[in-house]
Amino acid sequence: MAPAAAKKGLLERLDAGEIIIGDGGFVFALEKRGYVKAGPWTPEAAVEHPEAVRQLHREFLRAGANVMQTFTFYASEDKLENRGNYVAEKISGQKVNEAACDIARQVANEGDALVAGGVSQTPSYLSCKSESEVKAIFRKQLDIFINKDVDFLIAEYFEHVEEAIWAVEVLKESGKPVAASLCIGPEGDLNGVSPGECAVRLAKAGADVVGVNCHFDPMISIETVKLMKEGLEAANVKAYLMTQPLAYHTPDCGKQGFIDLPEFPFALEPRVVTRWDIHRYARDAYNLGVQYIGGCCGFEPYHIRAIAEELAPERGFLPEGSEKHGSWGSGLEMHTKPWVRARARREYWKELHPASGRPYCSSMSKPDAWGVTKGDAALMQQKDATTEAQLNVLFAKKSLKSF
Amino acid sequence: MAPAAAKKGLLERLDAGEIIIGDGGFVFALEKRGYVKAGPWTPEAAVEHPEAVRQLHREFLRAGANVMQTFTFYASEDKLENRGNYVAEKISGQKVNEAACDIARQVANEGDALVAGGVSQTPSYLSCKSESEVKAIFRKQLDIFINKDVDFLIAEYFEHVEEAIWAVEVLKESGKPVAASLCIGPEGDLNGVSPGECAVRLAKAGADVVGVNCHFDPMISIETVKLMKEGLEAANVKAYLMTQPLAYHTPDCGKQGFIDLPEFPFALEPRVVTRWDIHRYARDAYNLGVQYIGGCCGFEPYHIRAIAEELAPERGFLPEGSEKHGSWGSGLEMHTKPWVRARARREYWKELHPASGRPYCSSMSKPDAWGVTKGDAALMQQKDATTEAQLNVLFAKKSLKSF
Amino acid sequence: MAPAAAKKGLLERLDAGEIIIGDGGFVFALEKRGYVKAGPWTPEAAVEHPEAVRQLHREFLRAGANVMQTFTFYASEDKLENRGNYVAEKISGQKVNEAACDIARQVANEGDALVAGGVSQTPSYLSCKSESEVKAIFRKQLDIFINKDVDFLIAEYFEHVEEAIWAVEVLKESGKPVAASLCIGPEGDLNGVSPGECAVRLAKAGADVVGVNCHFDPMISIETVKLMKEGLEAANVKAYLMTQPLAYHTPDCGKQGFIDLPEFPFALEPRVVTRWDIHRYARDAYNLGVQYIGGCCGFEPYHIRAIAEELAPERGFLPEGSEKHGSWGSGLEMHTKPWVRARARREYWKELHPASGRPYCSSMSKPDAWGVTKGDAALMQQKDATTEAQLNVLFAKKSLKSF
Amino acid sequence: MAPAAAKKGLLERLDAGEIIIGDGGFVFALEKRGYVKAGPWTPEAAVEHPEAVRQLHREFLRAGANVMQTFTFYASEDKLENRGNYVAEKISGQKVNEAACDIARQVANEGDALVAGGVSQTPSYLSCKSESEVKAIFRKQLDIFINKDVDFLIAEYFEHVEEAIWAVEVLKESGKPVAASLCIGPEGDLNGVSPGECAVRLAKAGADVVGVNCHFDPMISIETVKLMKEGLEAANVKAYLMTQPLAYHTPDCGKQGFIDLPEFPFALEPRVVTRWDIHRYARDAYNLGVQYIGGCCGFEPYHIRAIAEELAPERGFLPEGSEKHGSWGSGLEMHTKPWVRARARREYWKELHPASGRPYCSSMSKPDAWGVTKGDAALMQQKDATTEAQLNVLFAKKSLKSF
Repeated sequence: MAPAAAKKGLLERLDAGEIIIGDGGFVFALEKRGYVKAGPWTPEAAVEHPEAVRQLHREFLRAGANVMQTFTFYASEDKLENRGNYVAEKISGQKVNEAACDIARQVANEGDALVAGGVSQTPSYLSCKSESEVKAIFRKQLDIFINKDVDFLIAEYFEHVEEAIWAVEVLKESGKPVAASLCIGPEGDLNGVSPGECAVRLAKAGADVVGVNCHFDPMISIETVKLMKEGLEAANVKAYLMTQPLAYHTPDCGKQGFIDLPEFPFALEPRVVTRWDIHRYARDAYNLGVQYIGGCCGFEPYHIRAIAEELAPERGFLPEGSEKHGSWGSGLEMHTKPWVRARARREYWKELHPASGRPYCSSMSKPDAWGVTKGDAALMQQKDATTEAQLNVLFAKKSLKSF
Repeated sequence: MAPAAAKKGLLERLDAGEIIIGDGGFVFALEKRGYVKAGPWTPEAAVEHPEAVRQLHREFLRAGANVMQTFTFYASEDKLENRGNYVAEKISGQKVNEAACDIARQVANEGDALVAGGVSQTPSYLSCKSESEVKAIFRKQLDIFINKDVDFLIAEYFEHVEEAIWAVEVLKESGKPVAASLCIGPEGDLNGVSPGECAVRLAKAGADVVGVNCHFDPMISIETVKLMKEGLEAANVKAYLMTQPLAYHTPDCGKQGFIDLPEFPFALEPRVVTRWDIHRYARDAYNLGVQYIGGCCGFEPYHIRAIAEELAPERGFLPEGSEKHGSWGSGLEMHTKPWVRARARREYWKELHPASGRPYCSSMSKPDAWGVTKGDAALMQQKDATTEAQLNVLFAKKSLKSF
Repeated sequence: MAPAAAKKGLLERLDAGEIIIGDGGFVFALEKRGYVKAGPWTPEAAVEHPEAVRQLHREFLRAGANVMQTFTFYASEDKLENRGNYVAEKISGQKVNEAACDIARQVANEGDALVAGGVSQTPSYLSCKSESEVKAIFRKQLDIFINKDVDFLIAEYFEHVEEAIWAVEVLKESGKPVAASLCIGPEGDLNGVSPGECAVRLAKAGADVVGVNCHFDPMISIETVKLMKEGLEAANVKAYLMTQPLAYHTPDCGKQGFIDLPEFPFALEPRVVTRWDIHRYARDAYNLGVQYIGGCCGFEPYHIRAIAEELAPERGFLPEGSEKHGSWGSGLEMHTKPWVRARARREYWKELHPASGRPYCSSMSKPDAWGVTKGDAALMQQKDATTEAQLNVLFAKKSLKSF
Repeated sequence: MAPAAAKKGLLERLDAGEIIIGDGGFVFALEKRGYVKAGPWTPEAAVEHPEAVRQLHREFLRAGANVMQTFTFYASEDKLENRGNYVAEKISGQKVNEAACDIARQVANEGDALVAGGVSQTPSYLSCKSESEVKAIFRKQLDIFINKDVDFLIAEYFEHVEEAIWAVEVLKESGKPVAASLCIGPEGDLNGVSPGECAVRLAKAGADVVGVNCHFDPMISIETVKLMKEGLEAANVKAYLMTQPLAYHTPDCGKQGFIDLPEFPFALEPRVVTRWDIHRYARDAYNLGVQYIGGCCGFEPYHIRAIAEELAPERGFLPEGSEKHGSWGSGLEMHTKPWVRARARREYWKELHPASGRPYCSSMSKPDAWGVTKGDAALMQQKDATTEAQLNVLFAKKSLKSF
């Protein structure tokens, strides 16, 4: 195994026209495995259960990922103490961030992957704190990333381009390459800034790579990045493109994405994309000129492997994980039942429209649309746990009649 | 942690009226993680990637499972050399079985779980080998289980009760408790033996616990076990009951279960059951008198945790994994968005009918029904890989027009 | 046009092995046209708007129907004065029945059709009136049918075979052929009498033709009649078979049929069967040996024509209405758009699975199941209109949460 | 009944702010009744079966329609002789148009309805005939309308605004009021002219009323007319608005509307809108300022009645047909079964999402999109019937695999 020092950096690879395969979603995968709590979605498992986090990193590496993103999603100090969260007090944000860096580096060194330190949107911004206050939050994480010498940085999961720009400006202080992705769809950010304009502003703020992650499905995300590409071209601004979408079908989402769907987060199962959906996503992203192609919530290792398999002709090799997967289902040649062996081909899976097995469920939902955004009292950070009285107000607001 | 020796055995627990929570499905979970090949579905990962297998065991333990089933599904010698499989030659069945036992024991010792050695249906039976030949296959695995001193034995995933009885007869030679589960639905086994009759024959052959696993969804499996219970009562034969169903909705399955569905095995995603479906399953199974409640293909750790959470009032405690899960979604109280906090309650999730997000897909499929069963040439074991000519015959038989 | 006198009677035709094509559903078709009120479903239009009733008869005749059923559904005196209905008092049951006979005869004489006088279940029976009281109700209608010299009689839409037998016994007094059909599914009548047993009892009571109508879709109805056929054969009792099912898909119905579906009666649209569904129904019914093949609620003239077109090879001719319909869509050869001309063939329509165009709707519903049957206070006949207080009790019972 | 002479004209009514309720779709309704052939869709029934046409007129009048549109859809001479159609030769276009006028006038005189003479798009235009040739076609029909003294004129079902303008220019020669509606959606006409621009051009050509009919569902059509309204306002051009949409849900249509759906025209059943969908349509249209509200293909009399019932508060009266319909299902108060009486209320029907009863069907389809438009050889008028060779080319082009 080559030492990390010998590896080509992010920009060298992108400049050379290489495809960068990102990893998948940690919080959702680890929630299902029992190590992350839905609600706070914070990454204390890096300290509490490092072996579980390490295993997931290894699976993504084996699936073909070129990036090990530090498991530092929502690991800003203000988030770790929000609404009764114990992590800031009992563990500390510093320890969580450090542990996440160590694990990512360890696994990255087992293969040809880079370590990316990641920051994401903060409760402080939603609570209308000042630019310098919010930047101070990001800087705290950045100090650790610099100390641990990550290979590059990612500002991701921002609903407001303004906050993302603040993050990029902080991260650029390090001199390392910076990628920035918003969790927006074709309608733009929550302040109504269009995807094209968002991309231009992020690139001008210093982001080397811009794109989207989370909140929307692969096809919608490609549509959004297409708008970003057009915006960049129109403004004659250069940046690499990235997509790290959901692995959930979201044709029925509004502007805020899958958070608003009634199924979020505990009944999204019927929306999970298949590996064949990912083949199409990888091809479409590649054809659009996206060089950094990964996934977010819902992406399991086999989804990342599907990106690597679809783009194997371009990359020239299959990922290690393909030793346990015949491309386009060809492993089924070894199945006992002959009618299953008859499915060992591309045409079969490419054309299949999978049934839901749920005769009492519809194909689409009506998203919640409360029209609540930055600055609203209900979005404010609070240290104390949500009280029963606060909940009852919300329960009354959300009638169960709607489904 | 108490030494294994101090643990109560399976029958002691069942006699005391305790609920035994089984673990989930290894081959499907590890296929998604990149360590099992769909098609052969064999468990060589126990040797090749022990840390991945160990991690999954730990997740199920943490989710509340009382049983660590050795990862020996399809680990019979004849299966490991079927249709071009390299495992028998390159690794050996003995090593796979031994490694699986060691991992299961290690993790079981980290908690209050028992180790169960498992055997499953063989290509030899489908190829019409004699009773003594088939029994010799089982005995090879049993020798290792005895040597590794597993706590009890499971004969599972049998489509023909006759073969299951042969397995039970072999396993009983050990003197250890034996559980037996068929992969059948309410229509009975592939020879047309009814569930009630199957249960009686298995119990008479020596099985202490009888039931079903795999091939059908939780609700259908409960229906089948209900027929087993009635058969046992009518025959005045005593046995404990077990269910380890799929975590896939299969209302459209025929007699052979989910193998026949066009979505098997690579497009089952929209059928995955939610944790709330599992709550209902656990309650219904308990109400029916099933004491051994677990899962099979598709069951992830969070599904097993849902069994443990639903039955926490009866068992008196929550599983360790619930430290990262508010029962019935109460962890959402900590979510940033108020309309998601409004989902932090049982009534919400219990009533929700999740949408598929797939407007071009139907709710049900027409299963393949080739009418091929034991003894058919197409089901015969063969050491060589399936040839292209053999595949073309199958491809021609299976027109793609059907969907 | 041959005079009616010269026509072969029902039994002559059946004895000769001829297929009898019934007509479609009057109350639902005329409700949509504006002449029948959903709720009471009574046939006063025969007096109030004879031209509308006559036109519908003509359309069914043109579509190939061999029977003009008098529009006397629910035309029993007790029904016409139930729950505030004005017909008994303002028009009289006698006039409604007479007008219906006259119209049916007029149109029957325009072609090769027979007139069938029909009676159906009574509020008196549901209100636990005595056998002689209920029979007196039927006899009132029969007197008119005899006076108007209909060709044969039909007792249809009975949920309890007991009441149907009473009807058959009364109708047989006329000496005319009698057909009897229950609105039951494979689970049998509301007293739990199996379809096979129902058929035997009806035939023994004197019915020349037995079968089912209404309440279930064509495929389920064929299943029920199959059970009737098997019952008759087992009992060595002879009767001709008939089916007049709904033109609505009802895979989700319980024992009481489509009345219990939440969509009944004003949102059944997405369930309407296509003409191609009817082709399959006609063929399956014919293959089972059903000789009297028609339709009930939802059957429009084009559905009846589809029966006649499917069975044209057996009958030797197409119906008059086929001059405006190319079999299996061949009329599309004349369409302007080439891709629509490409649909002018059997293979196209036979394989098509039509989409609902309703992305927020499921494929199946959960039927209401109040467990209310004969004798329950809520089913009692009452002359007065339902009061607001009575309604409020029902509204409170039926929570809107269920969908 | 007041003589026609005493009736207020179209413009007087519109100027006075009255709502004009249009009638429903004749070709689809009469196809189902057996009098129109799908494919040619021509209106020779006006001559061949006048009583059937008259009856449908009466039903729409009774349902509340203020307009009796002459049944002259596709009654241009060139269409009546297209692709083997016998009408031009055996009957003549003149007779068809005259008979249609007579029937419409007869029924209009039975109530407060106006007679509208209608022309629609021509094969000549699609075959690239000159403006004067196409106009000559329209003028032939207009001569008859003038001779029969219709009350106003409608140019409807045009896919190209250019042809519609030619039609309007011809119709204006009569001095009578002219309404013009295109069968377009929000994407505009087939030459890419936006709805707003189309509306402006039509109004400038002399149309007093502009809007859309056919091809799209009510909600999409309202969206299109909204764009028309905005275009008119922006251009400061005045015209009244009209909508006569399909009664089929078409969320999955492309630019050419429902013709492209695989279900057109023989499997549209699951898409039929309910009366409650129409309530919403009528309210939304009214709120947008549309004064002429009717329907097209799929609209049955009960759909038109639903417009009249929804707008009864504004119009001050219910239609005659409501004597057989309790608003919002209140007639169900008279139903025998109590759980059906519990549905006798607005809240019930308003919230219901009807199931399709079709578990093997999806909610949406992929439209055909052949990219064929005006001038393409495959669209050319031809007197001879489509030959088998021509069909085979089309069949080969349209693989059946697509569904």
